[in-house]
Amino acid sequence: MSASPSQQQPTKRPLNVLQRSLNRKVAVRLKSEIEYRGRMTNVDSYMNLILNDAEEFDGNDLMANYGKVVIRGNNVLFIKLEKEF
Amino acid sequence: MSASPSQQQPTKRPLNVLQRSLNRKVAVRLKSEIEYRGRMTNVDSYMNLILNDAEEFDGNDLMANYGKVVIRGNNVLFIKLEKEF
Amino acid sequence: MSASPSQQQPTKRPLNVLQRSLNRKVAVRLKSEIEYRGRMTNVDSYMNLILNDAEEFDGNDLMANYGKVVIRGNNVLFIKLEKEF
Amino acid sequence: MSASPSQQQPTKRPLNVLQRSLNRKVAVRLKSEIEYRGRMTNVDSYMNLILNDAEEFDGNDLMANYGKVVIRGNNVLFIKLEKEF
Amino acid sequence: MSASPSQQQPTKRPLNVLQRSLNRKVAVRLKSEIEYRGRMTNVDSYMNLILNDAEEFDGNDLMANYGKVVIRGNNVLFIKLEKEF
Amino acid sequence: MSASPSQQQPTKRPLNVLQRSLNRKVAVRLKSEIEYRGRMTNVDSYMNLILNDAEEFDGNDLMANYGKVVIRGNNVLFIKLEKEF
Amino acid sequence: MSASPSQQQPTKRPLNVLQRSLNRKVAVRLKSEIEYRGRMTNVDSYMNLILNDAEEFDGNDLMANYGKVVIRGNNVLFIKLEKEF
Repeated sequence: MSASPSQQQPTKRPLNVLQRSLNRKVAVRLKSEIEYRGRMTNVDSYMNLILNDAEEFDGNDLMANYGKVVIRGNNVLFIKLEKEF
Repeated sequence: MSASPSQQQPTKRPLNVLQRSLNRKVAVRLKSEIEYRGRMTNVDSYMNLILNDAEEFDGNDLMANYGKVVIRGNNVLFIKLEKEF
Repeated sequence: MSASPSQQQPTKRPLNVLQRSLNRKVAVRLKSEIEYRGRMTNVDSYMNLILNDAEEFDGNDLMANYGKVVIRGNNVLFIKLEKEF
Repeated sequence: MSASPSQQQPTKRPLNVLQRSLNRKVAVRLKSEIEYRGRMTNVDSYMNLILNDAEEFDGNDLMANYGKVVIRGNNVLFIKLEKEF
Repeated sequence: MSASPSQQQPTKRPLNVLQRSLNRKVAVRLKSEIEYRGRMTNVDSYMNLILNDAEEFDGNDLMANYGKVVIRGNNVLFIKLEKEF
Repeated sequence: MSASPSQQQPTKRPLNVLQRSLNRKVAVRLKSEIEYRGRMTNVDSYMNLILNDAEEFDGNDLMANYGKVVIRGNNVLFIKLEKEF
Repeated sequence: MSASPSQQQPTKRPLNVLQRSLNRKVAVRLKSEIEYRGRMTNVDSYMNLILNDAEEFDGNDLMANYGKVVIRGNNVLFIKLEKEF
């Protein structure tokens, strides 16, 4: 039988999967299509997140290095996990 | 007689139908018109969702392979279920 | 005398009228002006809805057939009921 | 003395004025500047509304006839009442 | 000492100032830069408002007369009070 | 030690700093990049605010004088305080 | 084991990291791609924030000096911390 959202196990929700990827390298694509790659040291339920050693990419071109960046979650299009960058 | 939204059976709601499609291949069209196809391993009530073995399509053209991707629900236009891709 | 929104009968609200149109063919116009036609098998209070045998139209041109589609409600411009398509 | 919003009489609020216009012909301008005219048979507190015998206008040009249409409130720019169309 | 928002007197809030301007002529600029002028007979806490004898202006050009108009508050850019129009 | 948002003193929050600038001249930049300058006589927690003797600027060019203006907070980009205009 | 968002320590959340950067120089990129740099003297849970001695940059070009600025959080794309500017 199918569970309603409120009956889901907490560990099953997308945001909990993000939590389990803390301290790994991820790539965050924003709505502007610009991508930020770095080690995700922090993320909350709005997808507000912190990247350490953040790099800005436009397509495959490295545009800038930013150190530690706090990204506001409402700008996020998607987050790539588990891939080599 | 017609039921009000709060009287609906949980299993009748669109988001519960999504829950029942977990682990199947789906295609997610974003507002940007770019489409992501993969196995949906996770979805919540905002349509935040996780695709495994995600492929990016622009129309019929495969643009990239992404591994595991967390898509923020507010970008979703629609999700295609039950069709061969 | 005029009733306040909270005093309305549940069956009077627009979303309840949508509920009563379940399993009928509808046309859903999105903000992108693209239109999706199909049998509405599911709808909730955000106008998240499911179309079976969905067809995509750009104006009068059939663009694609999609099978079963879950449309995220915040993209909906309007839904046409009770007309032959 | 001036009343705070919560002290207003329910019958004074804009949405209650809309309720009192049920079953009259109105014109609904959307953010896209397209206008829909018809008999408003239903409206809720988000300005989700239903038009019967809906006509679509682009400026003064009649573009289409739609029968019964459910318009999602967040697309509404304004609603014209009490005027001949 | 400075008061927190919740400690403010109700009559000090911007929306209460709007309430005190009921039945006066105002000019409502929308995000589309189109302006509507008329007697504001109703306004709520979302800036949903009703204008009687509404006139539509594009810059200084009168474009149309609309009678009674219900404007959805989320489209409002600003409202001009206390000026001759 | 760092305080969580809910542990902050009310007088430390950005919106309380705005409250303390009441009756001073400010410049309000909107998302449209148009700027409004005037004496801020009222502001609430959404940054809805009232300017008296409001002037509209496009860059350094004075475009119009508006008297008393109620600006809807969701259009605000930023507010400049403590500078001569 | 992975903690759900509500089980996180308050000091682990992105917004608390922002709190710990108070009184340091930061760079705030807005959705318009314009960047504001200054000493962040205040920030709340919506990323509403105050910059002292704010400078406006378009790319690497200094466009203007603004003194004290209150930025509305919903315009923020990201905030750069821990880097020399």
